[in-house]
Order: sequence, then structure tokens, then C-alpha cells
Amino acid sequence: MAYFENVNKIQFEGKDSRNPLAYKHYNAEEVVAGRTMDEHLRFAMAYWHTLTGGGSDPFGADTAIRGYSKFNGMDLAKARVEAAFEFLEKTGISYYCFHDRDIAPEGANLKETNANLDVIVAMLKNYMKTSGKKLLWNTANMFTNPRFVHGAGTTSNAEVYAYAGAQLKKGLEVGKELGAENYVFWGGREGYETLLNTDMKLELDNLARLYHMAIDYSKEIGFDAQFLIEPKPKEPTKHQYDFDTATCVAFLQTYGLKDHFKLNLEANHATLAGHTFEHELRVASMHGMLGSLDANQGDLLLGWDTDEFPTDLYATTMTMYEVLKNGGIGRGGINFDAKIRRASFEPVDLFYAHIAGMDAYAKGLKVAAKLIEDRALDTFIDERYSSFKEGIGADIVAGKATLHTLEKHALNQGEIRNVSGRQELIKSVVNQYLFG
Amino acid sequence: MAYFENVNKIQFEGKDSRNPLAYKHYNAEEVVAGRTMDEHLRFAMAYWHTLTGGGSDPFGADTAIRGYSKFNGMDLAKARVEAAFEFLEKTGISYYCFHDRDIAPEGANLKETNANLDVIVAMLKNYMKTSGKKLLWNTANMFTNPRFVHGAGTTSNAEVYAYAGAQLKKGLEVGKELGAENYVFWGGREGYETLLNTDMKLELDNLARLYHMAIDYSKEIGFDAQFLIEPKPKEPTKHQYDFDTATCVAFLQTYGLKDHFKLNLEANHATLAGHTFEHELRVASMHGMLGSLDANQGDLLLGWDTDEFPTDLYATTMTMYEVLKNGGIGRGGINFDAKIRRASFEPVDLFYAHIAGMDAYAKGLKVAAKLIEDRALDTFIDERYSSFKEGIGADIVAGKATLHTLEKHALNQGEIRNVSGRQELIKSVVNQYLFG
Amino acid sequence: MAYFENVNKIQFEGKDSRNPLAYKHYNAEEVVAGRTMDEHLRFAMAYWHTLTGGGSDPFGADTAIRGYSKFNGMDLAKARVEAAFEFLEKTGISYYCFHDRDIAPEGANLKETNANLDVIVAMLKNYMKTSGKKLLWNTANMFTNPRFVHGAGTTSNAEVYAYAGAQLKKGLEVGKELGAENYVFWGGREGYETLLNTDMKLELDNLARLYHMAIDYSKEIGFDAQFLIEPKPKEPTKHQYDFDTATCVAFLQTYGLKDHFKLNLEANHATLAGHTFEHELRVASMHGMLGSLDANQGDLLLGWDTDEFPTDLYATTMTMYEVLKNGGIGRGGINFDAKIRRASFEPVDLFYAHIAGMDAYAKGLKVAAKLIEDRALDTFIDERYSSFKEGIGADIVAGKATLHTLEKHALNQGEIRNVSGRQELIKSVVNQYLFG
Amino acid sequence: MAYFENVNKIQFEGKDSRNPLAYKHYNAEEVVAGRTMDEHLRFAMAYWHTLTGGGSDPFGADTAIRGYSKFNGMDLAKARVEAAFEFLEKTGISYYCFHDRDIAPEGANLKETNANLDVIVAMLKNYMKTSGKKLLWNTANMFTNPRFVHGAGTTSNAEVYAYAGAQLKKGLEVGKELGAENYVFWGGREGYETLLNTDMKLELDNLARLYHMAIDYSKEIGFDAQFLIEPKPKEPTKHQYDFDTATCVAFLQTYGLKDHFKLNLEANHATLAGHTFEHELRVASMHGMLGSLDANQGDLLLGWDTDEFPTDLYATTMTMYEVLKNGGIGRGGINFDAKIRRASFEPVDLFYAHIAGMDAYAKGLKVAAKLIEDRALDTFIDERYSSFKEGIGADIVAGKATLHTLEKHALNQGEIRNVSGRQELIKSVVNQYLFG
Repeated sequence: MAYFENVNKIQFEGKDSRNPLAYKHYNAEEVVAGRTMDEHLRFAMAYWHTLTGGGSDPFGADTAIRGYSKFNGMDLAKARVEAAFEFLEKTGISYYCFHDRDIAPEGANLKETNANLDVIVAMLKNYMKTSGKKLLWNTANMFTNPRFVHGAGTTSNAEVYAYAGAQLKKGLEVGKELGAENYVFWGGREGYETLLNTDMKLELDNLARLYHMAIDYSKEIGFDAQFLIEPKPKEPTKHQYDFDTATCVAFLQTYGLKDHFKLNLEANHATLAGHTFEHELRVASMHGMLGSLDANQGDLLLGWDTDEFPTDLYATTMTMYEVLKNGGIGRGGINFDAKIRRASFEPVDLFYAHIAGMDAYAKGLKVAAKLIEDRALDTFIDERYSSFKEGIGADIVAGKATLHTLEKHALNQGEIRNVSGRQELIKSVVNQYLFG
Repeated sequence: MAYFENVNKIQFEGKDSRNPLAYKHYNAEEVVAGRTMDEHLRFAMAYWHTLTGGGSDPFGADTAIRGYSKFNGMDLAKARVEAAFEFLEKTGISYYCFHDRDIAPEGANLKETNANLDVIVAMLKNYMKTSGKKLLWNTANMFTNPRFVHGAGTTSNAEVYAYAGAQLKKGLEVGKELGAENYVFWGGREGYETLLNTDMKLELDNLARLYHMAIDYSKEIGFDAQFLIEPKPKEPTKHQYDFDTATCVAFLQTYGLKDHFKLNLEANHATLAGHTFEHELRVASMHGMLGSLDANQGDLLLGWDTDEFPTDLYATTMTMYEVLKNGGIGRGGINFDAKIRRASFEPVDLFYAHIAGMDAYAKGLKVAAKLIEDRALDTFIDERYSSFKEGIGADIVAGKATLHTLEKHALNQGEIRNVSGRQELIKSVVNQYLFG
Repeated sequence: MAYFENVNKIQFEGKDSRNPLAYKHYNAEEVVAGRTMDEHLRFAMAYWHTLTGGGSDPFGADTAIRGYSKFNGMDLAKARVEAAFEFLEKTGISYYCFHDRDIAPEGANLKETNANLDVIVAMLKNYMKTSGKKLLWNTANMFTNPRFVHGAGTTSNAEVYAYAGAQLKKGLEVGKELGAENYVFWGGREGYETLLNTDMKLELDNLARLYHMAIDYSKEIGFDAQFLIEPKPKEPTKHQYDFDTATCVAFLQTYGLKDHFKLNLEANHATLAGHTFEHELRVASMHGMLGSLDANQGDLLLGWDTDEFPTDLYATTMTMYEVLKNGGIGRGGINFDAKIRRASFEPVDLFYAHIAGMDAYAKGLKVAAKLIEDRALDTFIDERYSSFKEGIGADIVAGKATLHTLEKHALNQGEIRNVSGRQELIKSVVNQYLFG
Repeated sequence: MAYFENVNKIQFEGKDSRNPLAYKHYNAEEVVAGRTMDEHLRFAMAYWHTLTGGGSDPFGADTAIRGYSKFNGMDLAKARVEAAFEFLEKTGISYYCFHDRDIAPEGANLKETNANLDVIVAMLKNYMKTSGKKLLWNTANMFTNPRFVHGAGTTSNAEVYAYAGAQLKKGLEVGKELGAENYVFWGGREGYETLLNTDMKLELDNLARLYHMAIDYSKEIGFDAQFLIEPKPKEPTKHQYDFDTATCVAFLQTYGLKDHFKLNLEANHATLAGHTFEHELRVASMHGMLGSLDANQGDLLLGWDTDEFPTDLYATTMTMYEVLKNGGIGRGGINFDAKIRRASFEPVDLFYAHIAGMDAYAKGLKVAAKLIEDRALDTFIDERYSSFKEGIGADIVAGKATLHTLEKHALNQGEIRNVSGRQELIKSVVNQYLFG
């Protein structure tokens, strides 16, 4: 059965086309900076937004018109699998991502829940074999069910913690079964509402313990996916423990976990934390921890996670700039953790939205590659820091300077001359690369 | 000469007094939770706000009426010392804090600048001896002078870095000379405006190098002050490297500096970073890094550092709650990094403002002590996490659980029962402690 | 049937009680500033939060444990009525408020929906007669159903507009039937997501037309309730048309509606718009448009409408200060548009939360009354503006001054002397009234 | 004397040029949508940022290197006039704007101050005659001097009010003398810090009185400039009275001033108030009050007015879209109320910055004109609201509908069918127009 019967496979038509169901910039086979776009931009579809989500918000019910809405329970789950692969096929997206509860409904108890999951996992495996589509990452939803009201790995209830452990175990097994390239830990409700009722130290100790167990079990079963932590500062809890990249780095260092994890960075989470996305990417990259991307964008005039499809070319360009400078995204990818607006409720909007996002990233990739090829920023930066290449500057970088040598140097300095940071000129340059 | 001649020494008059120049809650000798208020609340006056600042803002000139405004240069610097100690005496505040450039003007070159500094430091030393007042901490202002336009320890110019090193060296020497109990590193312009022109990795490596040099030199000269990093997320740069507590922890761990530093936490910096102050205190305390406080408050409807005097009793109560739970503030103190509003330009406003802040902290201390004494929150929290004291919970905490044992437990669970977090009730309880 | 069987009628026990199910400050009969608390604080229960809401959030399902959850459809609606009046009885709250869809489910079409509504309205009317409880206001939910995806009075679809008109008509009839003292227009989805697809002028013209129709129809049926517009800046749409008080005033003036409406002001909506609640109250009061209050509080570190129960005494004091200065709230009241936290899911939490809010307002009332009785702020303010009572100041206020007379005066002025605004002192004074 | 001797007149070189001192998109003579760019884009240089400002911020001293910095007092003022016209000449900018105190220093009293002003005004008049440059608007700085600490038109001190009136009188005279096309009222410190010490009603009444006096006096002297109010929500006061466009509209309507004023809208002020700039433009345009623009951009991750040069093409395109839809900007213009970053302290940075801004607006104009020419958005919007063109929709718009007719219609409706808002597709379309 076709759930998107009115849409054909999306074609690349180049920039003059007025066909809204065509890629203008994205072309899987086109080579940019030595690799195909498909290799650079390992796009993934987010199962939860594209298949499971329906457009509800805190003030309104679902709006999405979907062919499979007539089904329920396992029938619905199966229909969604069909729709998912039809969508992947028509868009040409190679990867997908899911939470366990996106793909299969919970049963009366954990055993039944796992059985439901097994049925759908088997079905996915078949579809993957046939289609060649791949699983970028999977994860466990440990935040929707009321049992997780106080968290999962950071719950105040040991019974819930045990349940979370069991769910995580299954998640790792599912990842192995489907050949997931990564496994994501997004701390759904790992945070707190008020310190007045919270033992933060115990909660974080417990969270670290759960991660160590996950490492141990993955080794045991031979699941070699890259493990990813996903920073987010708020929502649903007032304070999420994985606030931002730096906070995650501190946590992983403190608990001896740093070598086992990289980061899955989300654009809208960055801005909610008060950072640009490129800031978060740079910090992760400096720590060798740039793992994967959740591509979307927020509305900076709104204070919550809007998860919009990424269309801002400034942002996608700077994102791909950081990714290219990082030597690529490795085993990670670019997952559209983005949802169509509630008012974009027709099936075809899913295509328009992914095309918008993929084209924005493709154009961003091309501009970033050109900026790097021309050394448009690098030349300026090299010059700007050139005083650290010789004399006292070289001593500083080599670790040979002391406060004595610095003072001696300073007492003999003439007037210090700085050079302009040229921010306005550089922004003009970037505009020229973007707009001609 | 008296600069505050119309104000007598501030007395404790208790809560029924309508005298605006009296403490209502603060009483140095009063014992709370086993120590005098003076021991708990090691208040410090901030030289920059109280003596040097004049009320200018980005849209207007100085407004403050000060008796010493008629002087200039070193005469002004000396007059401010007199005024400072008169103010400390009349308020009964035991400590003060300063940046090098608060107390003495720059000269034509570093040598002359240091000479100016020496004169004032000698004068301060005398006043300290006579009055018994102490230096909570000193620091170096490496952000006001145009030479630091691109930063100091993170500058793009090695000449500036050398100058900063020399200034830091002198700062450590001054701290030793005056018996400073702490030395603060606030990263004035250690941050960036745009990644487009920034080599973040080099800048942070260099900053860490400077800190290592400071440690080495302090050992060399036998200056045993507690070293403090001060988190702040923005202002003056778009992105300050010491964003928040977690970011500082990550930085210090990454560069092998964690054992040498604690944190100087500021209330308004916490809220600018999207955190409550108590959050930052708790995170620092968990890491054994709660060093000292910059007491003030921000306006959460404004997006910049307003540095208001702290008058919100909810905030001061939770602050002192965290401090008491930390076992006190150790060698640190409570520095009023707060400025009178531009419209509070009369000398007496300085007294009103410090009284407002000191009373707010004193009352907060008393309420916090009572909350702890009654175990008003602890009892609830202990009960809330009690499932981690036995059975599977105890196994988890003891590190004995694995995903296998958790799964086994979960497969045999009945329905999980959570207990309400009782946030509304707990807030009522806190209100009752605060307001009767 | 009793849905809150473990809770007895809440008693006033005064401030020393440790009984969490007692009022500490609220006492209906106690006289403050010449009226009983019951007359000042016309508290209302919000049907949607207290009866209909279940604790779901964008990341999780309902958590609330409610005795009536076992029912469905009209049975559920009826059970909620019983629970509502049991709750009003036990808390001693005199008023309630609802949206049409809170109290009765939609049917297969508008006719059936209205029939459902009629059944419940009749039931409510009986309960009101028996209990003496009153309807502070009702309104129409024109935002939850998917038909309102593009708005109701500002929809892009005339069919939807017609439906909204019909629903509004019924709402006015229901209000009349139940003797509602006010009728509220909260612009649920009256706003836009992006100007790129929006005809703002047409949408606002249409909204005004709908309001005029409501005025006409109310006259026709003799429904003399006070009409209230409710400002809110964002959520659910990116830009809500009724952004804040000033925006509503401009809209009502522009469309000739100002004499027919007052405002229903909500604390959390004020802060989302960047204002203090007291600011919004003052602006409305200046325009003679302070109609009613939605009492709650937001979390200023979060960017969405958290609708917490009001527990901040600073806020409730300033709120009641503005209300008292306004000569009271008139036909309006204080509706708890507040929801228990998702983690406060037990029935008793509803009581704790309302007690927390009612006590916060009662204490705020007392403190505000005392501030006014003592003229603690008025005396200072009178003095501050006293120069407008005589001479050139009096001329200005009398409208006699011109730029000529002002210039003449200014050319002959000596040095102008301003007086401090004393913000820190005044905050100390307020603290003294609040905390002793 | 030449202050920018290393810079020649900026030429239009088109888009392939790599010359940083050339316009890429801006070409005064080029015709777009029926008018030359010069007619569309009535660019103005802001005297305060470009000539008077020096790069200081709350944490640091001036950094700007300017040839005239060696002068003081009136010599400095005169040198700045020379530099100003050299800059206007070399950039080809036709207009400039100033506050009285930008161009001439205050004297010992108002009389001397006015005398200083007269000297510079005469000099400006000569330069204008010679160069053909024009004054877009002037205004009075009634916020920098300490006398305005509590405001000017909203001060608590009648003496200050009188002074402000005198200054305003002179401002109008200067405007007339120099042929200003507009006169701006930016409410520098017209706002409040805390309601605790504020009589808001008196302050706003007084402000309106001052505006009426200005209207009267302008008539008297035959100064027919367009009067402009400039919304801003915060800074320097916590709450500025002219919060946003809607607030200004309400104020002007309330005080019978609406017919005498239009609005000067600033991009960064819009975002500080929580709005997009295009929102503010649309609201003003709907009221026939779109007067002039202060072109700049803020950093949405920072909470203060950063006044950056506008380089975001999305923003400039939407701005020019609204301006074109408004039928142009009339007597207003596009004033760069933007300052070079503190780190861009070299004279040439002023050129880079203005080029960046002018090119961004020129490109935005071209894209906006093309969007309109192709009816790229209009076609979609017309279709979206087409149901209001016939049947019940036409009745609604014609004012013929009542709640009766709407209900009757609704009771007979079949299922309502909405159409997607297509936000993602529309954003793709805009991207295609911007980036090809």
C-alpha cells in the first residue's frame, strides 16, 4: 500500500526549477570537497516526528492527515513501517532513527512490550535488507510513560531505575540486531524540577552507573555502535542534566566515561542553552567528541524547542563548515529531528519539509567547502594569531614562558598595537559566498 | 576627612525599628547554627562598585555624588582608600575585594603603573593593620584597557598575553603582600565575538598555560591563597569561555587544573546562564569546588548583568541553605558584587543598599538554618529516595547491578507505584519558614 | 460519590500550624482594609486545570490519578461536575471558570455538541443552586479542535469563522444561563506562525467584527456580563495578537471596542511578554480596564507558560497592591489558572496547591493593605513628584506651559538638583513589611 | 584635512569583485521596481555611532582610532563635521541623523550650550549646501546628562521637565534651520526602574503634554517635518514606555496624538521586545504609521541592544518586502543606527561596515521586489483567504454576518476542510529567491 501515492521519487533538478517536489541543491552523487554529497550528508529521517507525531501541541489535538491513522496498535505500527520505507525510498534518504516506543506500542507488561518490539524489529530488518536503508541510531524512550515522571536513570524510585535498565538492555540488543551505527542517550527526563526535593548527587551517580552498565553489556554482546549523549538544557524538566556540550564533557570526565561517548548535537538545543550551534560543534570537535547531528532550527524569539526544519542558510553553512573542519561526521549523520508545523498537516508537507532541509544542508555544504577551499576565513585567522608563531608568542605556545619571562618582556615593550577583528568585513565575505 | 559624615556606625536594632540606617536581621555576634553571623557571612565590599563606579551606563554619564570626585589621579586613589575604610568601619563589613586598576591608576607604562599600585598597596596595608579589615580577594583588571580588546589570556596578540602575564604576576605579589585569602580569575574578555575570526582551541590552550604559570609562581613566592575561577556566560564578549560552573569544571579537568581551583559564583551570572543560583552552588559543591560568592541579583526580565543588591529573600535563603549544606564557605566569603542603581546617586544610598543586602543574607541564613535544623526538606528527600536503601536499589548504589539483574528484576515487577514530588506543598513549607 | 474522600473541609488554623491541609493566612471572614478576605479575593477554580487536565506535557502522557478517570464521554463529564463541587466545597472557593469543552465532550456535529453542553449546564446549574457556588466566567475553547488550526476569529477559512461564531453564540447563552459575572475572550490561536503566509489586516478586522457581533448578541439576550480580553504574547502561535495589555488597548481603541471590554490579566502571560505582572495591572488600571486576574506564576528561566500555582509573596503582594489601588477587582476575581506540576499527580496535591496559592494571595493582601494604610510607598512618591504641585510644575500639569515658557524658565535656572530614587531603601522597606 | 585618507570613493563593482572597498549590490542609479535604489534606500549615517562613539562598553574604554581624537571641545566638534562629510562623500550616502549633543558639546549653562550648537549648525548648513547631503532627522539627547537620571518628559522633577522643553524647542529650531525631513522622539530615559517609586500616570500625562507642545511650536515656526516616535522596550530603563509599535499606537490614540506622529522602527528594538522586525513594520503599516527605519540587527542570544550592522539577508529582504508593500518609506529613510564592534576599531572598518549594511539592504530590496513582481507570496495568500471572497465569508467581511447567521451556517455545515499553511514550502521558495 502506498501512503504517499501522489508523490513520486524526488529528483534533482538544479536551481532553475520551479518544481516544489524536486531537490535544487541536493544531489546524492555530486562530488563536493572530494566526497559525494551522500557521503558528507548522511541524512536520516526521524521516525518520531515523521511517522509517529501527529501535530498536537499543549493547546491542541493532532492535525496530521495520514493514511495509516485508521489503524491501531500493532496494525498501526506495521503500517508505519511501510510508510517509513516508502518515504525513505521517495526522498532518497539513506538512514533513519527511532526510539523503541516510536516503532511499537507498549504491551500489558515488559515482556509483552518486548514481544511487540521484536515483531516490528524483524519487519524493519526485512525492509532494510530489501531497500538498503540503514539505521543511523536507535534509542529508548524513557520519558513518555508516566512511570518515568521522576526520570529514568535519575529517578527517585529504584523500581523505575530497574525498568529503565531493562529497557536499555533491550535497546542495545535491538541496535545490534538492526546494525545501528550509533546508540543515543537523550536524557528525556534526566533532570529536576526543583532542588527543594532533589538529591542531585545521587541522581547523577546513578546515571553514570547506568552508562557504565551499558558499556559493559555492549561489550558482552559485541554491539560496537558509537555511543552518543545528547545535550539539552530544559524541557521537559526545568533543568536537564545534559545542559550543553561543556556540561556533558564535565559529566563524562567526572565519571570516567569520556572515552566511551561522543555527542549528538542538536541545533535547537544549542540555542535554548544560549549558544550558537557552531559553538557547540566547535567545543565538541575540540574534545574529539563530535559524534552526530540532530538537524533542525529553533525560533530565537520563542523559549521552547520548536524543532523546525532547518532552512537558515547561514546556520547550515556554519554547521557544515565545522563538520568539514572536523574531518567529517564519521559514523554519525544528519538526523532531521524536525517536525512539520502543526498547520502543515498534509502528507505532501513532509516532502516539502525534508526537501527544504536537505537543500539547505546541501547548499550549506557547498558554500562551506568553497570557504575552506579558498581559505577565505583561514587566511585571516592565521594572520590574526601569527604573533604566536615566533618570539615570545612561540615560547608561550611551547610552554616555555613563565610569569618571569612574560613580565620581563612586558617591561620592555613599546606601545602594543592590536589589529581590528574585522567582524563586519568577514560577514560581508560570508554573504558574498552565500549570495554571490 | 570623612566622606560619609552624615552616617554613623550602623547598629543592629532588630525587626521593629523603622530606622533606615540600622540592621534589622544582621547582628555580627548573634549565633546561628553554632557560629556567629560574622563567621557565616564573611561579607566583603566590592571596591569597584562602591568606590570606583560612578553610575554611568551605556546611555549616560556618571551620576554619583561623592566627596572625592574633586580629586584626580593618585590623589583620587588615596581619597578612595580613606573613604573605603570609613565605609567598612561604619557598616561593620570585615572584608573587601578589588581589581588592581580599581585602587590605582595606570601610569605611562607598566613600570609606572606598578609603582602607582605599590603606593596604594602600602597605604591599604596600613589601614588594614589599624582597622583589622581584611582582603577577601584581589584580582587583575585585564579587560578595561583597549589593549585587551581581543582578550588577555585568550588574546590573539602575544604581546598582550605577555602584558597580561606581567599584570597577573604583580597581582599575585599584591595578594601576598596584603594577605589576600583568595585570588580571583574572572575572565573579563576571555571569550569571543564570532567564531568566524577565532581560533578557540589556541585561545583555551593559552588560557590554561597562563593558569599553570600562576600556580607555579604562587608556589614560588609562597602565596597560598585559594584560587577562584568565576563563571559568566556573556558580557562583555558574546561568548565568555567560563560560561557556567559545569563549563569551568570541564575546562579545569581537561587542562589538569581542577585540584588548584575553586569557583567564585555570582548570582546574576548564574541567571544569565539560564540557571538558578542554587543550581550553580549545588553543582560546585558536588565537585568540592564551592569557593566564594559574588552576592547580587539580576532582573530576570532583562538580559544583562544588572548587579543589583540582593534583596530577594527566597534567593538568599536558598543560597545560605546550599552554603550551610556545604559546611560553610571556607576561606571564601560573600562579596557584594552589586552596584547601587544609577538613580540612587547619593552617598547614603550606599549604606541603604548594603544594609538591604546584608539583612537579606542574615534573614536568609536564619531561615536556612531553621530549615536544616528541622530537617524540613531533608526528611522529605530521604523518604523520596528511600528505595535506594535496600533491595535492588541498594545494589544499584553499591555498583552491583548489571543490565542483566535489572532486567530480571523488571520482568518480575508488578505495577510500579511512584509518589508525588509534592512541589506545591514544599513551596508552602518554605513560605511558612520565611513568613511565619 | 466522593473523589477526594481523604480530605476534609480545609480550615483556617493560623500561622503556627504544621498541618499541611489548613489555611495559614486565608480566612474568608477576616476583615482587611474594610472588607472581608472573601470579598477581596474572589477566588475561582479553573475547571480545565483542576478537573480536565491530566498532567501530560509535550514529552509525556497524563500522570494524574483521579477517581473519575475510569469514566468516558458524558459519564466522565458528569463525574467531573461532582468532583468539581466537592473540591469547591472542601476548599471553600466560591467561584469557578470553564471553557465549553472542559465541561462537556464534543459530539458528532455542532448540534450534538450543543446538546452535550446543555446536559452538563443543567447539572451545573443545579449544583450551583444547592451549593451557592458561582460562575466567575466562562469562555469558548476555539483552539483545541483541529478545525481551529489556523485560528478561529482570525482563521483563513470562512467556514471555521462561522463555526466559531456559532460556538461563541452558545457560549454567551451558557453564560447567561449560569449567571456568569464575566465572559472571557482568550485568543487561543488568534495569531500567526509566519507573516509569509498571513494577511494580518484581514485577520484583525475579522476578529473585531466577531467582537462586535458578540456585543450585539449579548444585548439582544440581556446577558450583561463584563467582557474580558486576555493578553498573551506567544503560545500556541508564534505571535498572539493579544500580546500584552498595551496591544489589547490599541486594538480595542482602533476598532471602537474599548468601552465594551476590560482585561483579564494573567501573571505568567505578563512575564512571557517581558513585563512584571504589576506593570500590566498598572497599565490596565490607568485605562480603567483592570477586569479580572488569572493567578499563577511562571518560571522566568523558562520560555513557556508554566502556569505554576502562585507562591511568590513578592508577586502576590504587588498584585494585591495594584488591585487595592484600583479600588478592588469589581466584578472580576482571582482565577487560579494554574496547574499542579506533572509530578504532583495525587489528588491531595490539588489541595496543597490551592492552599499554597490562596495563602500566598491572602498574605499578599494583608501586606499590601498595611503598605497602603501606612502610606509606606505613597509618602515617598508624593514627595518625589512634589515639584509638579507648584510653580512651573503646576503649570505643566495644568496644561498651561508651552515650549516658550519652559525655555524661559530653563534659561534662568540655577543648577538642577535631583533627589535619589532610593530603590534599595524602598526594597528594604517592602522586605520589612513582608518578613518583619 | 582628510580623516579617511586611505579610502577612495566607494564604487559599484557588481558581484564578482573581491575588492572589499566596493559595493557588490548597491548601485544608486540602478532601477528596481520602478525607482532608483537611491530613491528606495534613503540611507543615512548615524552621527552618534559613526562620529561620536568610540567603542567603549560597560567593561572597557574607547578603542576607536580616529584622526580627530586629538582635539577637544568645539575643535573636536568641528573636526567631526569635516570627517562626517568626508565619510558621506566617500560612501555616497545622502543623509545623516544626529542628536543635538552628538554634534556639539554642552556649555556651562543652557545658553552657552545653545551657542555651541549654533556654531556647529551653521557649519553643517554650509557643508550641506556644498555637498548636497541632507538631514534625514535630528533629535534631542535627553538621557546622557545626569540631570535626566529620572527621565526628561517623564521626570519626577519639574525643573528637569522645563529644561527638556527648552532643549526640545531648540531641537525643532535646529531641524527647521537644517531642513530636517523628520524629527525623532526616542524616549531615552522615558520609563521607570521600579513601580515602587513611580507615578506612571503622571509621567505619561506629562509626556503627552510635551508632545502637544512640540506640535504647537512646530506649527508656530512652520517646521513641517514628519514627527516620529521610536519604540524600544528596555535599556536604559527597566521598562521604557515606548515598548513596541502597539504600545506607541495605544499611547498616541489615548492622548489624541495619533494623527501627528509616525513611527521610527528599529530592528534591534523589535527583537528586544520579542517581535520580528517585519512584525513591527506590518503593524505600523496597517495603522498608516510606518515612518522611517533604524537599520541594524541584534544578536538574539544576547539580551541587550547590540546595534550591529545589518548583514542578515533574510531580515533585510523581509524588511524591504514590508516597505515596498507599504508603498515605500515616504519622507523617512534607512538610518544605520549601528555601530562597528568594539574590536573593529580602525577607520576603514567604518567603511566595511556600511558597505556590508548597504549591500545587505540593496540585495534585500532586489529579492523583495522580485518576490512581489512574481507574486510569489501573494498568490498563495490570496488563495489561502479566498473563502472570504464569497458566500458567508463575503458576508463576514462586509459586516453583514451576525451570530445568528453564523450559527445557522455552522449547523448546516458538513465537515470543515482546512488547507495546509505550507510554511516549509514557502521558506524553500524564499530561499530560492535569495540563493538561486
